[in-house]
Amino acid sequence: MARPSVREQLVEAAAECFHHRGFNGTGIQDIARTAGVPKGSVYNHFASKEDLAAEVLDRYAASRDLAMLDDTTLAPLPRLRAHFDHLAADLARFSFERGCLFGNLGAELANQSDMLRDRVDTGLAAWASAVVRVLEEARAAGELTTPLDSDRLGPFLVEAWEGAVLRAKITRSRAPLDGFLAVLDTLAR
Amino acid sequence: MARPSVREQLVEAAAECFHHRGFNGTGIQDIARTAGVPKGSVYNHFASKEDLAAEVLDRYAASRDLAMLDDTTLAPLPRLRAHFDHLAADLARFSFERGCLFGNLGAELANQSDMLRDRVDTGLAAWASAVVRVLEEARAAGELTTPLDSDRLGPFLVEAWEGAVLRAKITRSRAPLDGFLAVLDTLAR
Repeated sequence: MARPSVREQLVEAAAECFHHRGFNGTGIQDIARTAGVPKGSVYNHFASKEDLAAEVLDRYAASRDLAMLDDTTLAPLPRLRAHFDHLAADLARFSFERGCLFGNLGAELANQSDMLRDRVDTGLAAWASAVVRVLEEARAAGELTTPLDSDRLGPFLVEAWEGAVLRAKITRSRAPLDGFLAVLDTLAR
Repeated sequence: MARPSVREQLVEAAAECFHHRGFNGTGIQDIARTAGVPKGSVYNHFASKEDLAAEVLDRYAASRDLAMLDDTTLAPLPRLRAHFDHLAADLARFSFERGCLFGNLGAELANQSDMLRDRVDTGLAAWASAVVRVLEEARAAGELTTPLDSDRLGPFLVEAWEGAVLRAKITRSRAPLDGFLAVLDTLAR
């Protein structure tokens, strides 16, 4: 396998640092040290920490595996459940300490960087739209009993998930995610 | 009216700064400037920025008006709705830019300060307990139709609210809060 490029190493290192200490709590030096490269090379690849964070958020958005929400080999509601189960398993690998990078950076930076706020907004909106599509399919298949519009329920589910992930991070436990899944099962039965 | 003490001015200034720029984005100098006092006086009153943030979180917890959740002059579900309406109105005063200090500092600092993580955890847990009590009252009064346990639904509602507040902050709009309220009305009808 080819060795990852320095640029690639920097993006991965920055993601790890931002997950752990946030944007303002992370220095360029921390990122360089985590990547195992000299501090100077960060600025050879990125104009600013903000630009690096934008790329981290783009990668993060791509890693959310939204494609699984369009995988019609599973019925709509089991597919939605599988999606959130998959995200919960990903959080469990880090003892729930990481939280969601959209939520973390959104909370920290919404008033500080329009560029990063935009990235988070776009990422969450795309995710909510994918959930709305699954809910529409579920409704067409007669799987959904809630009277709520899918257009309203989809964004709500993504937001409720973000809140549960935040609580899981604060309590370092899976319980809030299980609470979300229990409500999901009820809402959409 | 007595002039607020320097300590009081510092707590208020720090709350404003933390809401706007987060903990790591706020310097002691920013807090002193916002309070209109010399930088040195911060350390006359607080051992560290972390200690000051702990006091800010204690005040914030007290300002959540949880007592309104125990005000039995309103029926349980209208009372719960009034509580979230009240919080939404508070966020609207700041164009939804502030978010919730529990969510903001929890997301930013859960891995950095056990003391502050504890404060946020305690604040959110007390809030969820108060919501559970209202839901229990609603159930006893036959107001609740959801099959979910109140012990599960209460924390879920607080977490979903936190997620909606975060999304409102990112989109600078009220829509996510209205989405939450619409779901609340359905869940608890």
